[in-house]
Amino acid sequence: MSKTPAETGEERLIAKYFAPLAKHPGALGLLDDAATLTPLAGSDLVLTKDAIVGGVHFFPDDPADAVARKALRVNLSDLAAKGATPAGFLLALALPKSVTAGWLKAFARGLGADAENYACPLLGGDTVRTPGPLTVSITALGFLPHGEMVQRRGAKPGDRIVVTGTIGDGALGLKLLRDAKAAQRWKLDKNMRAHLLSRYRLPQPRTAVAVTVRKHASAAMDVSDGLAGDLAKLCRASGVGADVDVTRLPLSDAARRALAAQPALIETILSGGDDYEIVCAVPAAQSDAFIAAAQAAGIPAADIGRVMAGEGAPSFLGEGGRPLSLSQTSFSHF
Amino acid sequence: MSKTPAETGEERLIAKYFAPLAKHPGALGLLDDAATLTPLAGSDLVLTKDAIVGGVHFFPDDPADAVARKALRVNLSDLAAKGATPAGFLLALALPKSVTAGWLKAFARGLGADAENYACPLLGGDTVRTPGPLTVSITALGFLPHGEMVQRRGAKPGDRIVVTGTIGDGALGLKLLRDAKAAQRWKLDKNMRAHLLSRYRLPQPRTAVAVTVRKHASAAMDVSDGLAGDLAKLCRASGVGADVDVTRLPLSDAARRALAAQPALIETILSGGDDYEIVCAVPAAQSDAFIAAAQAAGIPAADIGRVMAGEGAPSFLGEGGRPLSLSQTSFSHF
Repeated sequence: MSKTPAETGEERLIAKYFAPLAKHPGALGLLDDAATLTPLAGSDLVLTKDAIVGGVHFFPDDPADAVARKALRVNLSDLAAKGATPAGFLLALALPKSVTAGWLKAFARGLGADAENYACPLLGGDTVRTPGPLTVSITALGFLPHGEMVQRRGAKPGDRIVVTGTIGDGALGLKLLRDAKAAQRWKLDKNMRAHLLSRYRLPQPRTAVAVTVRKHASAAMDVSDGLAGDLAKLCRASGVGADVDVTRLPLSDAARRALAAQPALIETILSGGDDYEIVCAVPAAQSDAFIAAAQAAGIPAADIGRVMAGEGAPSFLGEGGRPLSLSQTSFSHF
Repeated sequence: MSKTPAETGEERLIAKYFAPLAKHPGALGLLDDAATLTPLAGSDLVLTKDAIVGGVHFFPDDPADAVARKALRVNLSDLAAKGATPAGFLLALALPKSVTAGWLKAFARGLGADAENYACPLLGGDTVRTPGPLTVSITALGFLPHGEMVQRRGAKPGDRIVVTGTIGDGALGLKLLRDAKAAQRWKLDKNMRAHLLSRYRLPQPRTAVAVTVRKHASAAMDVSDGLAGDLAKLCRASGVGADVDVTRLPLSDAARRALAAQPALIETILSGGDDYEIVCAVPAAQSDAFIAAAQAAGIPAADIGRVMAGEGAPSFLGEGGRPLSLSQTSFSHF
């Protein structure tokens, strides 16, 4: 035997910041090559993977704990929209040299808090160096009863279109960050401004309605790239169209105030993205039950329109049923 | 209904390059937010995630198909070392603007070929823009019978230390890429040089021995950061030490030739990394059976030493049992 075993820098980093989060026994304390998970009997696994990149999906000076939370929450939002209960996640973290111990500590703190909040433990992952921006790639896993995953495909003509929460807040929050004078122009008070910023920085995955989605929705997806574009994707997958009554769109007080001051913001609200709400098609006879169950779970939900026969882009109808014309329906980096 | 549905740039990219690879029904043609997988009854899931970054883990001008294959294979190597059979993978791809259609086509071709080779289908993922280098993060999933995942922990004093394949080729291949005169100095012929380069560029995950590992090994891991450092990790996790007989190390003809020309290369061979072989501890009574079963599966395996009582770094013993002194046991970017 020779000298005492030396740990590598990567092992020390993982042991210090991330091993304390790996409370699931299958994570093996992050001391192994892989994690293990015993599926619930009769269940299917639901798998989703979203990556976020500094300077693209978040600002390089965003608080580290918020970056971690956003990275996890965008994945949890996908699981909820599919009707799945979170089971755990894996994290790949590409770190530039400039990242400090303080940043890592705050990142791990935010990640750990949300892993607890959403009962979605860290199972494993990889930590690598990058000469580029900080990049966080998360794979989240969920379970649901066999065969019950809610797909984008499945919406039927006559189904109601239901959305959770409020639409447009995240995109307006991003606009506020990019334009220091917007809050004044939109006549927002301090709380309204804070609400929109928080909605951009910290998505609220609708985990609490996953079971309701599974029980009632014929098709569902999370709204991350804008309601107009995402509903168009759901319609394409289902081979249907949709009429959305924009006057019934659920808006926060802040969004309502901004829209009153600047009506053209309807475009941002409908197609800016960063909502992390769920849009789903629900058979008409079940839409009241859906909304009641969501509300009982603490999540508001609103009926905003109807699935139409014939594949086509959704129509967004304003006051008096006049169709709005949107120049871009969806956010895309490509 | 309004105009024909427009697809986003990201949807077109996925549809063109990656959807053809998503042959598993649970991938839903990459047209949904998530994938789904029905676990085999009585099985555990094994999960691993490795990311590779341009300029860090591969050369920016490496062939795109080789980058894709390496990204998948390093994950398959982890699954094999744990005794798991591949079930599928998710891909997060961060693309700089400079990436061309030709590059993406070759990347998808390489990825698809290996997904077939290893029966590990693409299930889902995410494609994002990055201002930094191309980054590939893969999460691979495997199954094995409940409770049978082989951990790093579990090696017992008296167990034999067995490695698959040959050690050091990948690290020597990397040295060749960085030093144009090394091949001549090491007296390598053309085939030997090609062998080492290929071993660096294209790991050979030992999927064929996964069942053998599960059947016989008391502890195992894949050798990716160098045998010396990785065996030290296995020893730490198991609370044991190890004596390795370096004269019994399985070397390729090319590595043997290089080592004869430059004996100091033993350090590169033992601690350079990029081997993607499996090192495991096997009860002494089963080591012959392990080696025979591996060979029957087409993978050479060699007994290179013994697990020792008392936690400590492995000793590497050269000619006449003299311990080698290694300046660095393991590759680390941190």
